[in-house]
Amino acid sequence: MGLYDKFTRFVEERQKFQVSGINPFGTCIDEIYSATEGRIGDKRIILAGSNNYLGLTFDAEAIQESQEALRLQGTGTTGSRMANGTFGSHLALEQEIAAFFDLSTAIVFSTGYTANLGVISALATPDAVVIIDEDSHASIYDACALGGAQIIRFRHNDAKDLERRMQRLGEKAKEAIIIVEGIYSMLGDVAPLKEIVDIKRRYGGYILVDEAHSFGVMGEKGRGLVEDLGVEADIDIILGTFSKSLAAIGGFAVGGKQLDVLRYCSRPYIFTASPSPASIASVRASLRQVGHSKALREKLWTNAHRLYKGLADLGYKLGERVSPVVPVMIESKEAGLEMWRALVEKGVYVNLVLPPAAPFGMTLLRCSVNAAHSDEQIDAIIRAFAELKA
Amino acid sequence: MGLYDKFTRFVEERQKFQVSGINPFGTCIDEIYSATEGRIGDKRIILAGSNNYLGLTFDAEAIQESQEALRLQGTGTTGSRMANGTFGSHLALEQEIAAFFDLSTAIVFSTGYTANLGVISALATPDAVVIIDEDSHASIYDACALGGAQIIRFRHNDAKDLERRMQRLGEKAKEAIIIVEGIYSMLGDVAPLKEIVDIKRRYGGYILVDEAHSFGVMGEKGRGLVEDLGVEADIDIILGTFSKSLAAIGGFAVGGKQLDVLRYCSRPYIFTASPSPASIASVRASLRQVGHSKALREKLWTNAHRLYKGLADLGYKLGERVSPVVPVMIESKEAGLEMWRALVEKGVYVNLVLPPAAPFGMTLLRCSVNAAHSDEQIDAIIRAFAELKA
Repeated sequence: MGLYDKFTRFVEERQKFQVSGINPFGTCIDEIYSATEGRIGDKRIILAGSNNYLGLTFDAEAIQESQEALRLQGTGTTGSRMANGTFGSHLALEQEIAAFFDLSTAIVFSTGYTANLGVISALATPDAVVIIDEDSHASIYDACALGGAQIIRFRHNDAKDLERRMQRLGEKAKEAIIIVEGIYSMLGDVAPLKEIVDIKRRYGGYILVDEAHSFGVMGEKGRGLVEDLGVEADIDIILGTFSKSLAAIGGFAVGGKQLDVLRYCSRPYIFTASPSPASIASVRASLRQVGHSKALREKLWTNAHRLYKGLADLGYKLGERVSPVVPVMIESKEAGLEMWRALVEKGVYVNLVLPPAAPFGMTLLRCSVNAAHSDEQIDAIIRAFAELKA
Repeated sequence: MGLYDKFTRFVEERQKFQVSGINPFGTCIDEIYSATEGRIGDKRIILAGSNNYLGLTFDAEAIQESQEALRLQGTGTTGSRMANGTFGSHLALEQEIAAFFDLSTAIVFSTGYTANLGVISALATPDAVVIIDEDSHASIYDACALGGAQIIRFRHNDAKDLERRMQRLGEKAKEAIIIVEGIYSMLGDVAPLKEIVDIKRRYGGYILVDEAHSFGVMGEKGRGLVEDLGVEADIDIILGTFSKSLAAIGGFAVGGKQLDVLRYCSRPYIFTASPSPASIASVRASLRQVGHSKALREKLWTNAHRLYKGLADLGYKLGERVSPVVPVMIESKEAGLEMWRALVEKGVYVNLVLPPAAPFGMTLLRCSVNAAHSDEQIDAIIRAFAELKA
């Protein structure tokens, strides 16, 4: 058997999508002009499929401070946080994140995937009881696989189903680690966290919330869904990423003082080079923006409502809830691919998402808005979708 | 049981190392002055414990091009390579890496750990036969765990032991995936790759080589151990990192055309944000240096010989082989900690490495040299070790 024989079906699947033109699963953005515009081939396009929720990728201060970090601290640390890869700026960012959440300890990781992998794999050992939403991000599933835990899945956003599973655990429910997300990345819906907290109060257990898509997006201060619902006191660890509203790359975990021990027993943390000084500097700048700029969040939500309403008025089947992630549900893979290509032709880039990345066997044209989109750009996105109906 | 109770022994172990002064497993380099010098607390120190082998972290071109990438492309891509995270520069770097190795396909990952995790977990499925050196890096072990493969370990660098295990596999040896490293990060020794290739020729199977610590360091063109031994034709995939001789953060895999399929079935690749434009730009600049500057490699090896000889002359027990990684073997953890602290006091930072990060129950003061160290700096490191003997 050849080394790659097991992937034959992927190769075939992929060829179907590459018959003509650009590949939706590796589209090259040949040039990037701003947080909202780029070029694909010879086409100027509106970016309506990124996770750049606050539109901060071209923030002048973040760029300038990142450039300055390159000058002063070099291009990389060339070491893990456990060895020579902890610079003053890494610790400063950890303190700033902890302060932002009003919690005592934050740990910074080199990617968001690594943050989930690092924290959850350390906790999700074979003796642990881990209960996750069935629609959890791949990094959560992979972390549980790496940790060796048997996972229990509950139906997506179904607190009643979670409760049934906690009930069945009996005494062991007291040790259950419940993992949910703030905003789910594909459908834009949010975890029923009040109900889940109520379950924790009655049965015991711990709650981890991945705010990857909700940090900077929800909550008075931008802390995420946990803040939005006022359940801070009942959450044990919050996880997040730097590659969405913070516009860089990396991830974090924030929680109580004991979280710090993960530095000594999380293999993905110990055996990964630490984030570059340039990334750390731009995240610090963006974090200040998240703290200070309620206007950005307001514009983001205005844009979300505008796009949602526009597409709903056209008769598209969307997610249940208005959110910066606006999934357009398409009846088949083939139709999805055709529509995706037509949208690019019309100057609009969205994400084509097929199962298993899309949940429940769905085909999605996942749109996302950010705070930097103008009304005109949102209307142009709606217009492109309108033309598909014509 | 509390969420963190399972870590009690780590907490206790850690407290032992924090009784006084700085913590060797999270030392903060408060300021970084160059590829070879920094400040820890109020102490100016020579960095003799990083993976910055070619000393390129402050390379003027790399910094300038990285700053330019920030200006032109922003602080982050805010998307995975499969979605909106493939910019022109990511593809350009992949083509440059493939060309550098004279191979057809390269894939770039966001960290070195993720490169190993991404490639190996996709191949090391439950039905695969995976044979690894027992002293493999944590990322290789973790990748096998994530993939679900049963691994077979052979004795460190022992080709005879590998052959015995291949023999025992019978027909299945033809499908065995053998994974070794170029330079091993802790002992500085290298895989007996000629013998391993000979085994592959006789029994079949595939060979993956992780050149994390040997890329840029070994071989006429700096391609690594595989080039140094002239066995390119027999290696299936080469893995590497950007956080060592390329002085940034990220990783890569390079191989034949079929490698490309991993983009569609490697979860750590699919579900991780892509490297920042700033990282990609600095790696491209550093890769040019690796290709053009044989002088850097020569200076690196001159430094390695100088440090090795100096420490050997003092009677220290070192690795068997001269290498940019010079492990000083210490009889006990306690002695190692004390010596590590004394070295920092004397202005020298090395890595204190204890089991399980150090192999075979060893305690190591892992020294490493780079091409930017001056003779005077190497001599200062030797002098500090001499004073420990006084």
